[in-house]
Amino acid sequence: MTKTSLLPPSGTRDFLPQEAAHRLNIFRKIQNVFARHGFAPFDTPAFERIETLMGKYGEEGEKLIFKILKRGEKAATGEADYALRYDLTVPTMRAYAGNRHQLPPLFKRYQMAPVWRADRPGKGRFREFYQCDVDIFGSKNILADAEVISTLGMALHEVGLKDFTVNLNSRKLLKAMMEAYKIGSGQSQKLLITLDKMDKIGIEGVEKELAKIEGLDATDLLADIKSDDYNQRFLDRVTQLEEGRVGDVETRELIAHLKILAPHMNVVFDPLMVRGLDYYTGSIFEITSSNFKGSIAAGGRYDDLGKGLANVDVPVCGGSLGIERILMLLEDQKAEQTHGPSLYVTCWDQEAQADAMQFLVALREAGISAEIDMTGDRLGGQLKMADKRNCTYALIQGPDEKLAGEVVLKNLKEGTQEKMTFEGALKKVGG
Amino acid sequence: MTKTSLLPPSGTRDFLPQEAAHRLNIFRKIQNVFARHGFAPFDTPAFERIETLMGKYGEEGEKLIFKILKRGEKAATGEADYALRYDLTVPTMRAYAGNRHQLPPLFKRYQMAPVWRADRPGKGRFREFYQCDVDIFGSKNILADAEVISTLGMALHEVGLKDFTVNLNSRKLLKAMMEAYKIGSGQSQKLLITLDKMDKIGIEGVEKELAKIEGLDATDLLADIKSDDYNQRFLDRVTQLEEGRVGDVETRELIAHLKILAPHMNVVFDPLMVRGLDYYTGSIFEITSSNFKGSIAAGGRYDDLGKGLANVDVPVCGGSLGIERILMLLEDQKAEQTHGPSLYVTCWDQEAQADAMQFLVALREAGISAEIDMTGDRLGGQLKMADKRNCTYALIQGPDEKLAGEVVLKNLKEGTQEKMTFEGALKKVGG
Repeated sequence: MTKTSLLPPSGTRDFLPQEAAHRLNIFRKIQNVFARHGFAPFDTPAFERIETLMGKYGEEGEKLIFKILKRGEKAATGEADYALRYDLTVPTMRAYAGNRHQLPPLFKRYQMAPVWRADRPGKGRFREFYQCDVDIFGSKNILADAEVISTLGMALHEVGLKDFTVNLNSRKLLKAMMEAYKIGSGQSQKLLITLDKMDKIGIEGVEKELAKIEGLDATDLLADIKSDDYNQRFLDRVTQLEEGRVGDVETRELIAHLKILAPHMNVVFDPLMVRGLDYYTGSIFEITSSNFKGSIAAGGRYDDLGKGLANVDVPVCGGSLGIERILMLLEDQKAEQTHGPSLYVTCWDQEAQADAMQFLVALREAGISAEIDMTGDRLGGQLKMADKRNCTYALIQGPDEKLAGEVVLKNLKEGTQEKMTFEGALKKVGG
Repeated sequence: MTKTSLLPPSGTRDFLPQEAAHRLNIFRKIQNVFARHGFAPFDTPAFERIETLMGKYGEEGEKLIFKILKRGEKAATGEADYALRYDLTVPTMRAYAGNRHQLPPLFKRYQMAPVWRADRPGKGRFREFYQCDVDIFGSKNILADAEVISTLGMALHEVGLKDFTVNLNSRKLLKAMMEAYKIGSGQSQKLLITLDKMDKIGIEGVEKELAKIEGLDATDLLADIKSDDYNQRFLDRVTQLEEGRVGDVETRELIAHLKILAPHMNVVFDPLMVRGLDYYTGSIFEITSSNFKGSIAAGGRYDDLGKGLANVDVPVCGGSLGIERILMLLEDQKAEQTHGPSLYVTCWDQEAQADAMQFLVALREAGISAEIDMTGDRLGGQLKMADKRNCTYALIQGPDEKLAGEVVLKNLKEGTQEKMTFEGALKKVGG
């Protein structure tokens, strides 16, 4: 095999123990938060029928779908019938629609699973990466929006991210904005896409791009955006319309709920926050961290998506943790973890092996991660291996210790050691 | 969408909450056992370069590989460049070879991940299913074999399977058998394949099939197999040869180790057990359960596989849990689990909502899985929803209870209820 052929395919990764254990640990913490908030796991296959995915992600997205060749005699046609999932939303809608009569009328689901996109690989951009979604199906109550956002916030908190901000807005407010600022329906989508770039290209960039949109007169809107009290001007204007009033009340209610449900979170109303995807119908949110450019979680309410994707009419509010980004932010935690077992049981000689195995069994029974020497080397060689295996402790029992009913517990990280009974060592390592 | 299009692709499954939670629970228990035994997680991508997989699984196996179409302009060629992994062994060998300089000289790895095979779907046979492997790289010590087998045995024990048997044999004994019973090298592989069918077709079937193998004289062997003390006759004969003596000593040592490491396991020596795969070089084992036809775990030592797959010379001993079979055997455990949150916080009226949310937060902080009513119905409707959500308890606080500083805790499974302080309810549900 050549050297290249030992690498994983472009844009995918092998996870060595330290990284794999770190990811597993973070995934479990998040799953525990989701479970505590009443969300249940719900899984779909890695691939779907190709027609389930086609027409759902736009022309650019569709190009990035990994397609699976037909098998058997049909392989020669070069046609594909299945495709790897591109996100979790479309497969979940398919599965929800297919199974909805077996699911409770209010259905709270989470999924943490890989998706595949044939994107050009780059820093932090992979062809195989995890997505992590929570969704509440079947409630129009704004409490559902609050539950989704606070659950994601609690998950961030639980994995050790403290310094983040929840940015809120409402598609109802944005819709009212179009009417209030007299933006034509032909221009509104383009306007939103441009506003969404504010944090990247700034107000000057936005102004330039808006000027290029044919038939758009954004003079009033731009004047308000550039003023010092845009939020107030915006609200004054949009709440003159019914949809704007509803959006305003809902947003206030959502903020009040979040103050109770997740008081540690910093929540701000941001009338310029748009969220790229056009399927949102109510509240929208993005969670940002001062340590990272771009959002680390996002979502909103999409009460019409089910109709479009799977012909099922159900209100849904959901959100997604940018799990690969979060793992990047938590890189430093990784270094703190060992991936080796806690304790290495050495074998003084062949005769001592049975005793060593008994120690091993007792340690594991006490829940301690332990292993036994397999080198058959002298003690020095065994301790070197214990170190390479990244063990914290080594347990030694020579003939003298055996006579005295004792063991030596060596702390390999600190280079210290002490004699004690085996029970004492169990307590020390397990405690 | 048609009804069919709401089903997952043929041979794959959607996992609804109850099943998904059950699987997650079993996976975690097994991972915990593996970690306690010093095995570390090690992950590879879902797909590999097609040439990594080709030529590894035989002609029949190769037909079942899901191939991924090239992308962009090359999609039109109908050619594939990647393929979904068919097992965990080949990708792991590729990743081990590519990363071995970063790994400890003794490397203990586990992986629990889906693989894909375009097999004809059937009862218990899926196109997407999980495999669960443990392997020790870098030790020829028979203790490694004992660690692999006892770790798998402990995992079975931990998930609740008690009634199983470990069947042991050694490829060294089988190799010596060929010489001892004068089986020609041209016939030995065919003989092994036939002996492997013993539990399916019986001794008569084996005898018939052996008679068809050209150039094979199995008269002596068959006479011994049919005798009452085959094990002894077999050992007497093969231990006259060096390889047989080594195999015998190793097997005895392995059995002695297992008696200490996993005393609850029933271990038997079975000189007729073969294991289909021809890459084994030392000990081989199969774990069987009286509740299931076929093995629920299997493995052995394959010290030469690395050379063939990835040009890396490393002794390996490993084994695999038949995780989908085990999940089937544990089906009854599934029913015992609830997938709903433990507690449903009702809302007496709009005014009581803030208090209800405070209860919710306190419950979750105490680690209790809880959710809040989103129906906005009267109490009766809320309790119906709590039931549909499969909650165990409902928490109620009407105006009278609020005045008295109390709550009502209703056990929805038993239909009982009692008044207590909120702290009392916390204790009762959490304890």
